[in-house]
Amino acid sequence: MLKYQLIANQIENHIYENDLPKDTKLPTVEQLASDYGVSKSTIVKALESLVLKGIIYQVQGSGIFVRRRNRNGYINFTSPMGFTDNLKGNQITSKVLDLQLIKPNDEIYEYLECDDDEDIYQVKRVRYIDNKIMCYEESYYKKSIVAYLNQEIVQGSIFEYLKKAFNITTSFQDRYFYVCALNEELAELLMLNVNDPALVTYNQCYLPSGIIFNYSKIVYNYKNTQFYDQSSTIK
Amino acid sequence: MLKYQLIANQIENHIYENDLPKDTKLPTVEQLASDYGVSKSTIVKALESLVLKGIIYQVQGSGIFVRRRNRNGYINFTSPMGFTDNLKGNQITSKVLDLQLIKPNDEIYEYLECDDDEDIYQVKRVRYIDNKIMCYEESYYKKSIVAYLNQEIVQGSIFEYLKKAFNITTSFQDRYFYVCALNEELAELLMLNVNDPALVTYNQCYLPSGIIFNYSKIVYNYKNTQFYDQSSTIK
Repeated sequence: MLKYQLIANQIENHIYENDLPKDTKLPTVEQLASDYGVSKSTIVKALESLVLKGIIYQVQGSGIFVRRRNRNGYINFTSPMGFTDNLKGNQITSKVLDLQLIKPNDEIYEYLECDDDEDIYQVKRVRYIDNKIMCYEESYYKKSIVAYLNQEIVQGSIFEYLKKAFNITTSFQDRYFYVCALNEELAELLMLNVNDPALVTYNQCYLPSGIIFNYSKIVYNYKNTQFYDQSSTIK
Repeated sequence: MLKYQLIANQIENHIYENDLPKDTKLPTVEQLASDYGVSKSTIVKALESLVLKGIIYQVQGSGIFVRRRNRNGYINFTSPMGFTDNLKGNQITSKVLDLQLIKPNDEIYEYLECDDDEDIYQVKRVRYIDNKIMCYEESYYKKSIVAYLNQEIVQGSIFEYLKKAFNITTSFQDRYFYVCALNEELAELLMLNVNDPALVTYNQCYLPSGIIFNYSKIVYNYKNTQFYDQSSTIK
């Protein structure tokens, strides 16, 4: 990790550990450089990354301020990091419905951008937030990249496992989504009624090399989920 | 606009005007610096902003590549720019249901972060995409910032008007959203059935100074909307 990233993480932790409210004014660049024992240009880069991450905002001539924090229990919709990392204040658990190696059908072949007839891990799970059904998820991983999965691993956070075991993290992600009425099969999985509303997302996760390693479909239980995201006009 | 932003816009336009497909390899930094007649560091900054915008991705030791483009008609969920700017390939129109100056109620007072009893413009519109109902929107603007609105202005793109008339653009945005079943009033506005599913978003738009100038609630017609977003792990 580069130095400015370390500093950015430290500043972010400082904000959260001290529960600094929205619009709190942070020290100046000069003061931060002195406090952290680094150059001003390192501080400037750290602050830029925190602006883009939505942690702070900078006002020309006024200073650096804390941005609104996410409300507890709201799923951060922009985070490519996985639910367990996203919702640290909540307990995320899973019921594994299926784990097997398959050959890709047309849809998986296209969205996972498979080579030929490669082996794909298929994972079907119901995810719970604080013991309430959060979503139903079908995920597909290329075995050529994710070499090994088992029941115990997919019982927990797959993204955490991928990071520890293979040093795999999502570099960037494409997502398509829409809202629809639940059919009988999905309603049963989510313990809702037929025709209840649902958010459905299709996600493609890319390695830094630009290769897709994961394709997943997630159907959310509308009663137990609410979402939060932030955007900035890129300067 | 800074030089690297101009260059970034030109590179982006080049990609879209030439319809370069996903994974197209772009020229090297050296070649781009020569082509555009700027320094390599200007090119590097331009490319960094395009990575964050989701236009390209960079692979260490390999080069710079075009990322997946949004499908036509999908609403870019991360864009803080307004629908008209977002959906250039589609015709966005509005039916204005209400425009008036009001005093803030508790909810508006809190989410628009009003001072005292200031005047607020209330705008209620049904928005159409290619003549199909896209959403119902209730928006609130501080008159202290958005000095003037009339029927003709709110018939079109309010964000475009704000930019031209007051040089106001959204610097950053917070959004909360969830999915629910439509009540009778909203179902009628969207020309859907009671209990049909809907995505509901609450949006707060901030000026660069960190002051909120707009608070809006949007309820989407699920039959005529699908969404797209992208995220990158901030490096």
